[in-house]
Amino acid sequence: MSELIGACLIGQSGGPTAVINSSAYGVIKTALGKKCITKVLAAQHGIRGVLDDNIIDMGKEDAETLELMLTTPASLIRSCRYKLKDFREDDTDYKRILEIFKKYDIRYFFYNGGNDSMDTCNKISEYMATQDYECRIIGVPKTIDNDLVGTDHCPGFGSSAKYIALSVAEVIKDVHVYDRDAIVVIEVMGRHAGWLAGAAALSKICCEGPAFIYLPEVPFDMDQFFKDLDEFHKHHKRIVLVFSEGIKDKHGKFISEYGINDLNITDEFGHSQLGGLAATMSNIIRAKTGSKVRGIELSLLQRCASHAGSKTDRDEAAMAGAFAVEAAVSGETGKMVAFRRDTKYGIYKCTPVLVDLKEVANAEKCVPREWINEEGNNVTDEFIEYVVPLIQGEIETPYEHGMPKYARLKRIPAEPVNE
Amino acid sequence: MSELIGACLIGQSGGPTAVINSSAYGVIKTALGKKCITKVLAAQHGIRGVLDDNIIDMGKEDAETLELMLTTPASLIRSCRYKLKDFREDDTDYKRILEIFKKYDIRYFFYNGGNDSMDTCNKISEYMATQDYECRIIGVPKTIDNDLVGTDHCPGFGSSAKYIALSVAEVIKDVHVYDRDAIVVIEVMGRHAGWLAGAAALSKICCEGPAFIYLPEVPFDMDQFFKDLDEFHKHHKRIVLVFSEGIKDKHGKFISEYGINDLNITDEFGHSQLGGLAATMSNIIRAKTGSKVRGIELSLLQRCASHAGSKTDRDEAAMAGAFAVEAAVSGETGKMVAFRRDTKYGIYKCTPVLVDLKEVANAEKCVPREWINEEGNNVTDEFIEYVVPLIQGEIETPYEHGMPKYARLKRIPAEPVNE
Repeated sequence: MSELIGACLIGQSGGPTAVINSSAYGVIKTALGKKCITKVLAAQHGIRGVLDDNIIDMGKEDAETLELMLTTPASLIRSCRYKLKDFREDDTDYKRILEIFKKYDIRYFFYNGGNDSMDTCNKISEYMATQDYECRIIGVPKTIDNDLVGTDHCPGFGSSAKYIALSVAEVIKDVHVYDRDAIVVIEVMGRHAGWLAGAAALSKICCEGPAFIYLPEVPFDMDQFFKDLDEFHKHHKRIVLVFSEGIKDKHGKFISEYGINDLNITDEFGHSQLGGLAATMSNIIRAKTGSKVRGIELSLLQRCASHAGSKTDRDEAAMAGAFAVEAAVSGETGKMVAFRRDTKYGIYKCTPVLVDLKEVANAEKCVPREWINEEGNNVTDEFIEYVVPLIQGEIETPYEHGMPKYARLKRIPAEPVNE
Repeated sequence: MSELIGACLIGQSGGPTAVINSSAYGVIKTALGKKCITKVLAAQHGIRGVLDDNIIDMGKEDAETLELMLTTPASLIRSCRYKLKDFREDDTDYKRILEIFKKYDIRYFFYNGGNDSMDTCNKISEYMATQDYECRIIGVPKTIDNDLVGTDHCPGFGSSAKYIALSVAEVIKDVHVYDRDAIVVIEVMGRHAGWLAGAAALSKICCEGPAFIYLPEVPFDMDQFFKDLDEFHKHHKRIVLVFSEGIKDKHGKFISEYGINDLNITDEFGHSQLGGLAATMSNIIRAKTGSKVRGIELSLLQRCASHAGSKTDRDEAAMAGAFAVEAAVSGETGKMVAFRRDTKYGIYKCTPVLVDLKEVANAEKCVPREWINEEGNNVTDEFIEYVVPLIQGEIETPYEHGMPKYARLKRIPAEPVNE
């Protein structure tokens, strides 16, 4: 494989995470050490930043700033949600991307994100293969949803899982101090996959754990739910319930879209519901049982909670970025970095490998049915064993003036090579 | 002062906190070391546990369990919300309390809680003074609301303030990754006092900080709010707003009780609102501006978040408990432990002192008007300087099987001395 000399570009898209900056750090730090990489650039706001020529030079940032990326939440180089068309139907965006790549002599492109981002990455990779311009393209995985295929798990998931497990444990401890009936409904992110909701089960390692956990992988049966709740209520005054935001009934209707009317309940709560699943389920349970019910939506809190981040997740996020650069320099393209779990003698080990981008783009990995209990209202111990290694270790965060010291970028525009 | 020999009893009431177990630890550990204290007992579920004769022997717990109380959130000896009547009108409960005290030879009573708990503590203290039974009674402060009078600050506040500051910072970092309009409404606890909402301002130490913060101390003016919001929106696409749950308009009406109808807005959101302030304000802002608005209620998450606890707060909570025992043994009664801030040469120092229970009972300390800006939409730097020392230091939590190791009590019933 001949040596490819030129600049590299990193971009990020989709929702931010507690450790997405660590993947950028892995790319940037490794790329800065490569002789064949002439400049290390970042597109602000992902592929939109390429289209808008919003490119900054990461080589001009201080070394201390780069190190602080390892403990700074959310995407410092910012993000976007932008879907590229099929270039065989409309290549306008692609021509512009090629123009920008040529302008800065970009020969290495790293795109960090989830399903949609890998779709973008794959499309650009396929387009570039049709052009007379060598450019190596590698996807770096990122998603708290943990739903990318071809990888054991995804950077970002471990930290959110840890935050959820800790928060649910603390709510359970809180709810148990009073000697009275109380039902708490906790809504966790996950439109199609229940990985994050399932992570709430880890709270049972340190306390009672949630009574029930509902994942989108199993159709939600309202009648069965109230039977289970009644039975549990006979022996427990305090009940904490965890729901994926994306649970649906057997007809495919989101439970978050249920109104009280769907259940033929007419009472003071008989308006159509606003807000998400926590509000909807709280109102339904309150109307049906008369119990005191509190809804808690973890919302954005669960996405970038670096204060409760997992060191394992952070280190793996950085490793994924570094491995992407090594792979590209060694000649790889059209691939995504994936993780293989090499647990041996009970000791967890994670090895970075490569998978084809086209296998990953737009596909979704759900929680296997066998990791959900038969009743469909909790996860199994196998699920917990899968998650536990991913939440290990605390991130040591530097503090300044009493709060975490976050990286602040200078954002110096990149200088064109060819114009 | 003659030496008083007998058992001691601790009880807790009101909402739990991240560090309330540390105050219990301070009482228990110190009491176990006193020769004059024959037994160290705890009433489960506070004063209700006394009335119900639900008393456990903390001397029978393992040393390791006691140490784990320093890192376990929420009240291990549980809590209650129970208001005692005036004993001059109805002394039924008081006679029962005296009966239980005699049964276990309780000569020292420590009650750990907020305003209502100090009212309970004060009433029992006044009643006991009318009886021929010597018992020394000391209140130990606790409240995330930070609204007890006679003390610089309250154990529990620092940890919740830290959690709120970190969480708001992380949400702000999250919201800023996209290049689009977004408004986020964050609801923080505080029915009458804005200490917790104000703590969100500490996020500006590490990032942009919230656009505006609204406290219950200043009447909320909806028209002025929308003027401020419009002005801010001209220069900022992403807006994070923080509200105390307890903000009211100039007529004293809670904003959380506003429906869209109050504003003469007729549209798809024109139902009366369910849920709290975050939902109400989100709906109002969405209807008025047409912007994408997300409401986040920190809810119970902000109360027992020991994973983000302040070491300073934790250490002071334990100190308050220890000081209560020392004071009682030295002959004090009818007092509450309070904190005096002895900052010198810029170095923060907190000294425990005693204040009269009757001064504290039922009174409320609000944020001084001069610590809120003139416009009434943020706190001043003086407010931030007040809070910063209280959130310092991380709590080192022992882990087991991948999650925090929480204390589990054996809860062995106390043995009566006289029956």
